Amino acid sequence: MSVTSARGFTAAGLAAGIKENGGRDLALVVNQGPRYAAAGVFTSNRVQAAPVRWTRDGLADGVLHAVVLNSGGANACTGSQGAHDTRATAERAAARLGAAPADVAVCSTGLIGVPLPMDRLLAGIDRAADGLSESGGKDAALAIMTTDTMPKTASAGHDGWTVGGMAKGAGMLAPGLATMLVVLTTDAVVDSGDLDRALRAATRVTFDRVDSDGCMSTNDTVLLLASGASGVNPEYAGFAEAVRVVCDDLARQLVKDAEGADKEIRIEVTGAASEDDAVEVGRSIARNNLLKCALHGEDPNWGRVLSAIGTTKAAFEPDRLNVAINGVRVCENGSVGEDRALVDMTGREISIRVELDAGADSAVIWTNDLTAAYVHENSEYSS
Amino acid sequence: MSVTSARGFTAAGLAAGIKENGGRDLALVVNQGPRYAAAGVFTSNRVQAAPVRWTRDGLADGVLHAVVLNSGGANACTGSQGAHDTRATAERAAARLGAAPADVAVCSTGLIGVPLPMDRLLAGIDRAADGLSESGGKDAALAIMTTDTMPKTASAGHDGWTVGGMAKGAGMLAPGLATMLVVLTTDAVVDSGDLDRALRAATRVTFDRVDSDGCMSTNDTVLLLASGASGVNPEYAGFAEAVRVVCDDLARQLVKDAEGADKEIRIEVTGAASEDDAVEVGRSIARNNLLKCALHGEDPNWGRVLSAIGTTKAAFEPDRLNVAINGVRVCENGSVGEDRALVDMTGREISIRVELDAGADSAVIWTNDLTAAYVHENSEYSS
Repeated sequence: MSVTSARGFTAAGLAAGIKENGGRDLALVVNQGPRYAAAGVFTSNRVQAAPVRWTRDGLADGVLHAVVLNSGGANACTGSQGAHDTRATAERAAARLGAAPADVAVCSTGLIGVPLPMDRLLAGIDRAADGLSESGGKDAALAIMTTDTMPKTASAGHDGWTVGGMAKGAGMLAPGLATMLVVLTTDAVVDSGDLDRALRAATRVTFDRVDSDGCMSTNDTVLLLASGASGVNPEYAGFAEAVRVVCDDLARQLVKDAEGADKEIRIEVTGAASEDDAVEVGRSIARNNLLKCALHGEDPNWGRVLSAIGTTKAAFEPDRLNVAINGVRVCENGSVGEDRALVDMTGREISIRVELDAGADSAVIWTNDLTAAYVHENSEYSS
Repeated sequence: MSVTSARGFTAAGLAAGIKENGGRDLALVVNQGPRYAAAGVFTSNRVQAAPVRWTRDGLADGVLHAVVLNSGGANACTGSQGAHDTRATAERAAARLGAAPADVAVCSTGLIGVPLPMDRLLAGIDRAADGLSESGGKDAALAIMTTDTMPKTASAGHDGWTVGGMAKGAGMLAPGLATMLVVLTTDAVVDSGDLDRALRAATRVTFDRVDSDGCMSTNDTVLLLASGASGVNPEYAGFAEAVRVVCDDLARQLVKDAEGADKEIRIEVTGAASEDDAVEVGRSIARNNLLKCALHGEDPNWGRVLSAIGTTKAAFEPDRLNVAINGVRVCENGSVGEDRALVDMTGREISIRVELDAGADSAVIWTNDLTAAYVHENSEYSS
């Protein structure tokens, strides 16, 4: 149930002194081979942190030997010093592991615009390299946490091979609440082309459909490393499904642990003329602050759902829209439907189902409510 | 300083019993002529309330005799009953005023998806028609308030002619926090074509550049009525500028009275390759919840400004971005600039100036901070 669930991987997580509170802040994940295929997807924000640029470049050949991750500092908007620091991080780990620097990915999360304390970070890499173990996945998951309240790990085992992983930060590739970092590992024998294909297919319908607070990070990174240690070369479809299952599990954990949230909101848009339409409508609903406040107050405010749908370019007719909240169809044909008093919203999960009546496509977007705790948490620290 | 500042207009505002709390909830504004030219702009939301559809249709000939406005119910998403109720509203006022129903505009604001109490509303129209006066502008401004904490009026006087107006709801045509209703009046002699041109030019750079919470209403309406009672036919440029000044005044009042807000935030984007780019960047910053929380906490979090810019398609290079907050250039060339401790954010107004270094165009967007009070206010009532 972690980044070391798959054979051929070791990891460590420790306190290097990057975080001011002395907590764990440095993780190292190492692929021990015999194969080193890898793939990655990154934030689509055009303002990208130095580690994102480094890792993307290094992944051009589809090979990674290791990943260094730090919390306590995003190394974003740090200019040429930031690029230098990321390179130094990769070089130190590479030297300790006998790998090429370009084969060491770097992921950072924390404050933007603050240089990393490199002495402590580099010393931490040495200690992490000394402490690598096949049971180090849990420590690594702890070391990448920022405002997360619990570590996030998952795995899916199959006939002789496994996909495992860890994540931090209630966020996503397109919009995210905080930097989302994910490292997935597998001992299956898969080449980098298939890793890339499976990873993009999985993130598109999992992390990319989480929209907690509409904000997109400068650092989001999802990596998938394959050691080939199982000796098993699975059928592509089965492998891709295992990657999707692990991503879905981690994505759900991100939503459950979003900053300040009290509710997990599942928005299902059906009857869309295209999947893009369904996603656009779902995302518009997910980002409507008025609705997110209403749901926090357990108010089945379907009027705010309709006003959010109305801002999109999706195909629909206003007087053919239906909306069900927790199974009660409170809006029928764009007007008043069943009695809203029938809607029970006391549970933590809320389901909103929208029928566009314009086609056969659908999509699910996950979001959270907007709470005073979110405001407090994000008023009181810089990131 | 109101909708009756210009000659040729009478108004009334009273409690018709639409609001449960017994407050003023019905306003009537009447053009007494001798001319009846008019223009309007409406929400771009595709889910539009019945009164929006009615008024848009009625304005096709550029003539309005009167405007009926009610708070206490938006008459949105109310199906054919809603359309019937809006027509009945216009017909009752028209009968009392000796006008054609199509020349009576209707504006509604309040809960979505709830039918209006028509008996009380129609009786209220009778009483309002009986109570019309040339000093009724203030009462009318009070009667259209919902969560507004104060009435909003403005006027601009010129050589022999005047533009006056009233507004409710911290919102806008494109996104708005609540329904925004605005009625502007003038005694200048202006035909409906020039009214339309002046109104569109004014709203484009005033109400359309307020983005308090990113949500767009189903009911936003801005109307401009010209009585010609001054007998003065002003030069177009001077008239258009007077309309812009009144719209700008009212727009600023909307921002100052936004739900739960503690700060008014002026976002100026300069050096843009086009005005559209400047608006896109400003709006992206205005809608970033993480930044709005930080500003609430008086944290000059320029990293969140950059991450918001990075989500746009505007022309810019990340390492050439400059950001000043309250005059301190905290970000230079996409990296750390002047000491953020120098930024004084204790005042109510916050200025963010972004230099894209990609051209010569610019735009100003106004928004608010995100507060726990906003969450509380919007968790506890339906709209």
